[in-house]
Amino acid sequence: MTLINDVMHEVNEVMDLVKEDQIDDAEGLIQMDRRIFVLGAGRSGLMAKGFAMRLMHIGYTVFVIGETITPAIKAGDVLVAVSGSGKTGSVVEPTEKAKQDGVKIVAVTSNADSPLAQLGDAVIIVPGATKAGDGVQSIQLLSTLFDQSVHITLDILCLKLSRRDHVSNGMAKSTHSNLE
Amino acid sequence: MTLINDVMHEVNEVMDLVKEDQIDDAEGLIQMDRRIFVLGAGRSGLMAKGFAMRLMHIGYTVFVIGETITPAIKAGDVLVAVSGSGKTGSVVEPTEKAKQDGVKIVAVTSNADSPLAQLGDAVIIVPGATKAGDGVQSIQLLSTLFDQSVHITLDILCLKLSRRDHVSNGMAKSTHSNLE
Amino acid sequence: MTLINDVMHEVNEVMDLVKEDQIDDAEGLIQMDRRIFVLGAGRSGLMAKGFAMRLMHIGYTVFVIGETITPAIKAGDVLVAVSGSGKTGSVVEPTEKAKQDGVKIVAVTSNADSPLAQLGDAVIIVPGATKAGDGVQSIQLLSTLFDQSVHITLDILCLKLSRRDHVSNGMAKSTHSNLE
Amino acid sequence: MTLINDVMHEVNEVMDLVKEDQIDDAEGLIQMDRRIFVLGAGRSGLMAKGFAMRLMHIGYTVFVIGETITPAIKAGDVLVAVSGSGKTGSVVEPTEKAKQDGVKIVAVTSNADSPLAQLGDAVIIVPGATKAGDGVQSIQLLSTLFDQSVHITLDILCLKLSRRDHVSNGMAKSTHSNLE
Repeated sequence: MTLINDVMHEVNEVMDLVKEDQIDDAEGLIQMDRRIFVLGAGRSGLMAKGFAMRLMHIGYTVFVIGETITPAIKAGDVLVAVSGSGKTGSVVEPTEKAKQDGVKIVAVTSNADSPLAQLGDAVIIVPGATKAGDGVQSIQLLSTLFDQSVHITLDILCLKLSRRDHVSNGMAKSTHSNLE
Repeated sequence: MTLINDVMHEVNEVMDLVKEDQIDDAEGLIQMDRRIFVLGAGRSGLMAKGFAMRLMHIGYTVFVIGETITPAIKAGDVLVAVSGSGKTGSVVEPTEKAKQDGVKIVAVTSNADSPLAQLGDAVIIVPGATKAGDGVQSIQLLSTLFDQSVHITLDILCLKLSRRDHVSNGMAKSTHSNLE
Repeated sequence: MTLINDVMHEVNEVMDLVKEDQIDDAEGLIQMDRRIFVLGAGRSGLMAKGFAMRLMHIGYTVFVIGETITPAIKAGDVLVAVSGSGKTGSVVEPTEKAKQDGVKIVAVTSNADSPLAQLGDAVIIVPGATKAGDGVQSIQLLSTLFDQSVHITLDILCLKLSRRDHVSNGMAKSTHSNLE
Repeated sequence: MTLINDVMHEVNEVMDLVKEDQIDDAEGLIQMDRRIFVLGAGRSGLMAKGFAMRLMHIGYTVFVIGETITPAIKAGDVLVAVSGSGKTGSVVEPTEKAKQDGVKIVAVTSNADSPLAQLGDAVIIVPGATKAGDGVQSIQLLSTLFDQSVHITLDILCLKLSRRDHVSNGMAKSTHSNLE
C-alpha cells in the first residue's frame, strides 16, 4: 500500500465522521446581508483564508481577522473561527469578545468539549488528529489531518452556499481576482 | 549633528518637493462611491497597505491586491499603485492591465518619466532616493527615503479625504479593528 | 448520497491519479542544505503557504515569495511553484526568471502541457478540475478540487520528508510557532 | 501654510523628542548571531514589517510574528514589539510570554508608563499621538503621527546597524527580493 492510500484512508475516515447537518447549521447563519469574518492561527488560519476567498467569489462581504482592510466586527456579523484543539488563545479570546458583542459564532474544531466549541452558535466538529492529540489518529505530523479535513468541510459548505444562492461557476469566475 | 537630524533633514527636503496640488488631483479621484484598490511590492507595498487601512477607517471600500478577499477590479474602480523606480514589473504590468479595463490610476513614484507615471490619471511624484538611484540623494539604504516620504504623503492625502468627507477621529476609531 | 460523499468521491478519484514517483522526484530536490522558496497565487498560494509552514516545522529554511522577509533567490535554491492551469502569469514569469538563474524548479499543476510544467525539474501532476477547465470534472466551484488535492499531495511530500529526515511529531511541535 | 507643512511640523516635533541613546540601546541588543522577531498590530504591525524587511536586507535572520514561516521563539532571541499605547493585548501578551521564556525585548511605544514599556530590555519612546491620546498632539487621524515617527525611528536604527555591520547599499541590494 502506498502513502497516498494511507493518507486518503485517514481523510476518508474523518470525513465519514463529519455530520452534514452541522454544515447545514453553519449555512443557516451565513447570509448575504451579513458580513462574514474568519479567524484562525497557523495552518488553520490558511484554511480560514481559503474559505474567505471562496465566499468572496460567491458574492459575500467577507473579512479575514488580521488582514489590512478588516474593520471592526459588530452585532449582526458572523465570525467563523477555526482551531483544531479549540483552545488556541489567539482564536478563543477574540471569539469570546465577539460573542459578547452580539456576533454569531461558527466554531470549527476537532474537540466538541473545547472552549471554542462552547462559544459556537453553530459548531462543526471535524475530528481529525490535531497537534493536541484530539480526533482520529494519524501517521501525519501535528494537525495535518485536521487541516485537510477542515479544508474539504469548508469547501462543502461553500458548495451548499453557492447552490442555495444560485451562483454558477461563471459568476464566481467573474469575481475572481483578475490581476494575477 | 545626530543621525536623527541627518535623516529628518532628508525627509524635509523631499517633502518640500512634493506638490500639494498633485495630492489634490489624487483626492479628486478617490470618492466614496468608487472601490479603491492599492498595489505595491516590498516596502512600497507596506506603505500601500498602511494607506488602505486608513482609507478603511475613513469609510472607503478598499482592497489590497494580493490579499485574500480582493475581488476582480473593473471599470469605475480606482487603483493606487506605488513604485519608487516606477518600473517594478509586478506593479507596472497589473496597472497597465487595469488601465486598459477602464480603471482610473493614481501613480505614486519617485520618477516622473517612468512607465508607472505614464499610466497615471493622477500622478504624485515623491522624489526620495530609491534603490534605482532616483530622486534626492540619501545616506539611507535602498529606497528608505522614498518609503518614508510616501508614507507621509499618503497620510496627508488621508487627512484631506477625512476633512472633505467630514470624518472625525471618533468616527475613524469606531471602524478600527476591535479584535486586537 | 450526501454532498460529503460526492465531494470525497471526487477527491479520491484525483488522488488515485497522482503518481507517487512524481512526489518522490520532488523529495529528491528538497534537501536540508538548500533554501526552499514557494510561490502560488490565490488559493494555490494558500496551499503553497501551508506547505512552507510544514517544511519549517520539519526543519527546512523556507521562504514564501511575497512575504516580508523573503530574500533574493539564487542558484542552488529550490522553487516550488503551484498553479492549477500552469499558466498564471504571476507564477510562470518569476519561475522562468528563477530557472534562468539556476534555481531548481518543482512544478505542481493540473496541466502536464502547461508552461509551468515545462519549467519543472520535478513535476507533480494533480489532475483536479481547475478554473481553466483542466483535469477531473467537478461539481465544485472553480479550482476547488485542484486545491484540495494539492493540499493532500504536498502533505504527503511532507510526510515523506519527515520520515527521510527522521523528524518526529515532538520535534515538529517544538518548532511550531509558540506565540499564538 | 500648507497641510504638508503642518504635518511635517508635527513629525519634526516628535523626532526632536526621540532620544538617540535609546536607539543605541536597541542597537546593542540586535546582533547577527541572534534571531530577531518583530510584532505589532494594525499600522504598527506594518511598520514592524518594514523594519524586518530592512533587517533582512542588512543580513539578519528575522521573522514576523504571524507570517507563514515563523518558528518558535526561544531564549537568546530578540523580540521587537511595537504598540502606540503600549497596551494592545495582541502585542503585550505575547511579549510577556516571550520575556518569561528568556527572550530579550525591544519595546517601541509612545507611552513610557505602559505595560509594553515595562517589559522592555531596551525601550524606544516615540511620543507621537496615538489613538489612545498619548504623545504630541496631532491634526492627523488616530495613531498616524506615531506610525510616521516609528517608521523613521526604526529606519535610523537600521542605518546605525548597517554602518556598524559594514553593509553597503550594494550589499543590501543583492539580498533584496528579486522576483518582483
